[in-house]
Amino acid sequence: MAWEITKEVKSEIKLNNPVLLEGLPGIGNVGKIAVDFLVEELKAKKICSFFSYKFPHSVFVNENNLIEMPKIEVYYKKFKDKNKRDLLLLVGDIQPIDEESCYSFCDEVLELMKGWGCKEIVTTGGIGLQKTPEKPRVYCTSNDEVLLKNYVKKGIYVERDIFGVVGPIVGVSGVLLGRGKQKGVKGVALLAETLGHPMFLGIKGAKELLKVLDDQFALGLNLKKLSKEIISLEKEIMKKTKEWSQVGTKTEPGAKPASEGDMNYIG
Amino acid sequence: MAWEITKEVKSEIKLNNPVLLEGLPGIGNVGKIAVDFLVEELKAKKICSFFSYKFPHSVFVNENNLIEMPKIEVYYKKFKDKNKRDLLLLVGDIQPIDEESCYSFCDEVLELMKGWGCKEIVTTGGIGLQKTPEKPRVYCTSNDEVLLKNYVKKGIYVERDIFGVVGPIVGVSGVLLGRGKQKGVKGVALLAETLGHPMFLGIKGAKELLKVLDDQFALGLNLKKLSKEIISLEKEIMKKTKEWSQVGTKTEPGAKPASEGDMNYIG
Amino acid sequence: MAWEITKEVKSEIKLNNPVLLEGLPGIGNVGKIAVDFLVEELKAKKICSFFSYKFPHSVFVNENNLIEMPKIEVYYKKFKDKNKRDLLLLVGDIQPIDEESCYSFCDEVLELMKGWGCKEIVTTGGIGLQKTPEKPRVYCTSNDEVLLKNYVKKGIYVERDIFGVVGPIVGVSGVLLGRGKQKGVKGVALLAETLGHPMFLGIKGAKELLKVLDDQFALGLNLKKLSKEIISLEKEIMKKTKEWSQVGTKTEPGAKPASEGDMNYIG
Amino acid sequence: MAWEITKEVKSEIKLNNPVLLEGLPGIGNVGKIAVDFLVEELKAKKICSFFSYKFPHSVFVNENNLIEMPKIEVYYKKFKDKNKRDLLLLVGDIQPIDEESCYSFCDEVLELMKGWGCKEIVTTGGIGLQKTPEKPRVYCTSNDEVLLKNYVKKGIYVERDIFGVVGPIVGVSGVLLGRGKQKGVKGVALLAETLGHPMFLGIKGAKELLKVLDDQFALGLNLKKLSKEIISLEKEIMKKTKEWSQVGTKTEPGAKPASEGDMNYIG
Repeated sequence: MAWEITKEVKSEIKLNNPVLLEGLPGIGNVGKIAVDFLVEELKAKKICSFFSYKFPHSVFVNENNLIEMPKIEVYYKKFKDKNKRDLLLLVGDIQPIDEESCYSFCDEVLELMKGWGCKEIVTTGGIGLQKTPEKPRVYCTSNDEVLLKNYVKKGIYVERDIFGVVGPIVGVSGVLLGRGKQKGVKGVALLAETLGHPMFLGIKGAKELLKVLDDQFALGLNLKKLSKEIISLEKEIMKKTKEWSQVGTKTEPGAKPASEGDMNYIG
Repeated sequence: MAWEITKEVKSEIKLNNPVLLEGLPGIGNVGKIAVDFLVEELKAKKICSFFSYKFPHSVFVNENNLIEMPKIEVYYKKFKDKNKRDLLLLVGDIQPIDEESCYSFCDEVLELMKGWGCKEIVTTGGIGLQKTPEKPRVYCTSNDEVLLKNYVKKGIYVERDIFGVVGPIVGVSGVLLGRGKQKGVKGVALLAETLGHPMFLGIKGAKELLKVLDDQFALGLNLKKLSKEIISLEKEIMKKTKEWSQVGTKTEPGAKPASEGDMNYIG
Repeated sequence: MAWEITKEVKSEIKLNNPVLLEGLPGIGNVGKIAVDFLVEELKAKKICSFFSYKFPHSVFVNENNLIEMPKIEVYYKKFKDKNKRDLLLLVGDIQPIDEESCYSFCDEVLELMKGWGCKEIVTTGGIGLQKTPEKPRVYCTSNDEVLLKNYVKKGIYVERDIFGVVGPIVGVSGVLLGRGKQKGVKGVALLAETLGHPMFLGIKGAKELLKVLDDQFALGLNLKKLSKEIISLEKEIMKKTKEWSQVGTKTEPGAKPASEGDMNYIG
Repeated sequence: MAWEITKEVKSEIKLNNPVLLEGLPGIGNVGKIAVDFLVEELKAKKICSFFSYKFPHSVFVNENNLIEMPKIEVYYKKFKDKNKRDLLLLVGDIQPIDEESCYSFCDEVLELMKGWGCKEIVTTGGIGLQKTPEKPRVYCTSNDEVLLKNYVKKGIYVERDIFGVVGPIVGVSGVLLGRGKQKGVKGVALLAETLGHPMFLGIKGAKELLKVLDDQFALGLNLKKLSKEIISLEKEIMKKTKEWSQVGTKTEPGAKPASEGDMNYIG
């Protein structure tokens, strides 16, 4: 069994020249924070969810004392304004855990995108630094020369040169671009500097990513809200992601006490 | 090859509104001790057994000098009293070893439950603490709000709030609830505090779990028996479980001397 | 692809009430030394060989400067004397490396045994001690009570009680008995004490195993030969087995200098 | 999904008694440097490329700020001179990461070779020493006695005896010979001494390999070029290979800063 994809809408959704924004967990979780924020702000609706036997074999207990399984989902936003591109938002608690599941997951997403008439993606990720960056810079790479110029030309929100700054980009944010290119889908990866600590919440990095997206897609975001709202919202979401990142095949079956104290770093 | 399921009964078994109790090994083995005790006390009969290529590739030598393969089995108990719910008891020496086999195993169990007319499960597990709890508390979580209230309402045997007390629940006791919810099966997990040491036999924790089960299902158990009988019975069973938990892919083929001395902690 | 089995004989072989003797590498390699010796002494002929994608992905350079792939093979010996049971001998450079390949390999062997009219096995292994045993004892376990008595009754070559002496028996020597029982094949495991060091050649342990086999099957072996012949023969064979045991998925592709000096311990 | 093979030529290529030269990354990357050099020098053309879900799940950012996926490719060279054997050149950024993908990859290559009318291979690799060799020696092994003599007879470029010098040969350079033998393909492995450090570029070792190939196949190479050209070319290529060798399943999704300083050793 590979990927179980559950449709969450009753009828087909027609989207206007959509772009898919990817925000799964990773270094500093800057992409996750940014795209989770968009789902909330834009009141996006769920279009499908994913499941695989390669998910962590554990469940989380939420604030209602009920269990939740790890989630990967796609939401969509249809704008009334026909000059705006509609959005698909790929969000979740986890990334696929190994090479095979990462590649097969990305191929499933690219296949679904055909059905949604979507040929462009923006993936997100963090560049893990040794110190917390005061004002995180955003770098950009792409699988298409023209699309890349589109993002870096102004040089205001996005740095001009990424070559030599980063090593390989690991996971869905890189592989979606690589497999995308082979399947006719253009894409960019937006990478924001952040602290390379697994429990760091890169709020500032997320904010810089949102500025780029706001500029590219004229989303009209109220970014002051980000700092206040997101911190409370995300602390809870991040609890799940952080704990799932520590569960692996070797973990003894059973329950652990909740992690000691409040050890999230907000920046 | 995934799961080889062997039927151990000659004809179909009809059960009265059954509930499945899961007691596989885990932290402190509190669930295993409790449900093994029920199989003995109630003289339950075997209904099926499981095998998979993902089992530890080793055999145990028993007190008759004969070899035994690792086991996962389901027993059943039909009560004469039609006011009592019949029971299915999932017991064994091991848990499936990785994500894929855990998920596929739980899906097989949920599928078998349909055939047995069973739509409700109680899973069990331990919460591993740093010190041996004098009087272990039992916490409860569920995949269904109404069923959860059912267990916590009295507040006598089960604590009211679990949120914030435990991190992810790893293994079959969590995944059975998660996948169960997706397949219309309601369930609770009962988690008893115990010492988080791999060789600890959480007898006290098991006793607290049995009090909850006794109260929920009116089993009429004689729990004084537990402390005396179980200790001798379980020490032998636990030898197997403990030794299998130390065997992995890296273990050099051959036999090892039996573990040094009697290092079980009973509590 | 699971197991590629190559037939090495032109026509079907009819054997007289055969028994299969297993001697794959393991702790102290006592079984391998013993059964390799039998193949040489009895001038057994190859009947089939095995290959799997789960073999170590490396080749060995032999004394003719030519490469050799890892091998697992079965040999057979037809005796002229119809009172003697014919033999099948399972030998090789490696054991299957993980749970799945161990179980699937044993199932293949048990399936082949049907075709050869063979319903009984003797597996071999070492019990790894902390010191080199002066006179290694041989223990015996089985999947059948009657067959076990057959081996231990005299108490001369085989110890009466194994329970409590060994922990789980890992690998083919245990799993062949476990799966064998499920498929109507009776078997015993003969386990000789040896030093638990990966580079130890348990010649003494192998000799004790051969005494048991000689006694059970009236093979008429010249065991004085063992100490002289085997040492030179086995040192070369063991070089391969030892080096393959150190190769794993993490080994960087390429060649390594041969292991430093002659670090085999012969005992 | 196993191996996705993409044809990079429009029509069938007919080659004159071709030989396949393998130069994938490994110890000191001596083979990779040598065969990459041949692709450049001979202006070879791409004939096919490989992809698998078992590739590292990451992408590299190149000097144009665009992403690149890990690559394994085959190039070909047709010579005008009919006395020369045509060449197939197997090159890439990575080796298959585990036993299964190594074996299945080699089987795919051997199958493709049938279609190209190719029955002979030369694989390459490094022998990792503790010190940088001043003048690296080249050793040779084979799956065919006659072919081996062909290479060692002069004793000028290739040492006469390899037995005892190297341990197992891990990866494609060994497995192609092993599986090749089973499928009627003859081959040799040329192994050059080099420093066993993961960031070492064994230029001298590569040069010695090229002398052997130049002598065997009358390629007419200008090896003075090697030292100048290769160093600049290969430093960039090696950046990718080095960084991919450090990415594994455990790497946290995201981007890393480029490796500190210029830590390639050229020798």
